[in-house]
Amino acid sequence: MDSKDTEMISGLHPVRRALEAGGRSCRKIVIESGGRNPRLHSILDLARKKGVPVETLSSGIFRKRFKSENNQSVVGYFDRRPAQDLDGLLQLAGGHPSPILVLLDEIQDPHNLGAVLRSAEVLGLQGAVVPNRRSAPLNATVAKCASGALETLPIAQVTNLVRAVEELKENGYWVVGLDMDGEADCGELDYNFPLALVLGGEEKGIRSLLRKSCDTLVRIPMQGQVESLNASAAASIVFYEAVKNRGQ
Amino acid sequence: MDSKDTEMISGLHPVRRALEAGGRSCRKIVIESGGRNPRLHSILDLARKKGVPVETLSSGIFRKRFKSENNQSVVGYFDRRPAQDLDGLLQLAGGHPSPILVLLDEIQDPHNLGAVLRSAEVLGLQGAVVPNRRSAPLNATVAKCASGALETLPIAQVTNLVRAVEELKENGYWVVGLDMDGEADCGELDYNFPLALVLGGEEKGIRSLLRKSCDTLVRIPMQGQVESLNASAAASIVFYEAVKNRGQ
Repeated sequence: MDSKDTEMISGLHPVRRALEAGGRSCRKIVIESGGRNPRLHSILDLARKKGVPVETLSSGIFRKRFKSENNQSVVGYFDRRPAQDLDGLLQLAGGHPSPILVLLDEIQDPHNLGAVLRSAEVLGLQGAVVPNRRSAPLNATVAKCASGALETLPIAQVTNLVRAVEELKENGYWVVGLDMDGEADCGELDYNFPLALVLGGEEKGIRSLLRKSCDTLVRIPMQGQVESLNASAAASIVFYEAVKNRGQ
Repeated sequence: MDSKDTEMISGLHPVRRALEAGGRSCRKIVIESGGRNPRLHSILDLARKKGVPVETLSSGIFRKRFKSENNQSVVGYFDRRPAQDLDGLLQLAGGHPSPILVLLDEIQDPHNLGAVLRSAEVLGLQGAVVPNRRSAPLNATVAKCASGALETLPIAQVTNLVRAVEELKENGYWVVGLDMDGEADCGELDYNFPLALVLGGEEKGIRSLLRKSCDTLVRIPMQGQVESLNASAAASIVFYEAVKNRGQ
């Protein structure tokens, strides 16, 4: 049933968040018979209230059909999110007096991508921009690691991040890249204006052309012998500082 | 060969870090024949300099033997780290004018545990305390996710975290727990003294008795609709603030 129009979401929290957020229709919930987690009941209650059909499968069949995911005995099929473009995202973010967006350059690991989007939502960013290509697709694994953030965080998919940066600049955004060779500590910048944070992929960081298009680069102070933080740890620190320095 | 005395480490960066750190002997490196990554050559160079035997296996045999790990065509067998107790850790940390330690309560997911220890090392903490039981064991998966941090970050394993907190207090540490109901923002505290940060597990946070034994609780400001950050994202923000506020 996972198709062009629908998308499978798995796990208690992601399915509940998607049902609650109500941003898109749920076609069907599938559960493993005998699931005892009380949070499963709250999902079934929600599904009943919203008139969503629930299919119960025996453990054997459920596990065979959904073996690849740590799904906590529940999956849901939801309409795909309507594709958002950058103009739409800018319009949404424009409702905030001092919006913060994040641009994610080539994050390949869906777990990392999901974790970064989760942190962006939790810490209070207004949206994310991801490339159509050379990035993990926004699939069920991303949705699960995002723990429901994909339901509420506006995400624009664009063909070219450098062009997106230019458009952001034209719209008054200050573009800050996170880079190990950044000239300032991420805590030292005054972020009190529309801000676009650019984060690079796991291995290579921000690609050269995109880095050059940033207004400035910041770094996270590091002291250990291990070379770098993982993507979501680094992203979380920068998101936290950006929101904090916005003075909210 | 993974046994009581030795431990397998897999992946380019973790194996190289363990060889470089030199804290414990390497018994053998095993590589997949035909591995082309230039970082593999630097490992082979290091192994030769240190007189470590290298075994090359055909792809078929290598993949069959080490199928469960994303090992990037290299694994190493190292002597297990000598077990560190809390007194030993306190002695090590005592060499720092204002040490910061982290206590990890029941982090069950080895990926999370590894990522938290990686952040602790990178951001400049002096060590970690983990319980012997009810926590992911410090195995190869933790080592891989820690990206080499286990080689340089001192880690004490203790039977009882509440007792460890008492001992830390007796040694002049201020004990701060991270909790969603914390009374202060993590950025508001003056951390300029020996500090022990207490972090809870993924689902339940810090257990009740341990939470009560903290001197104070802090929270990370959150704005989104998703309920929480993942463990390593939250840990990274608090480590970052602690080190920053220590004024280094």
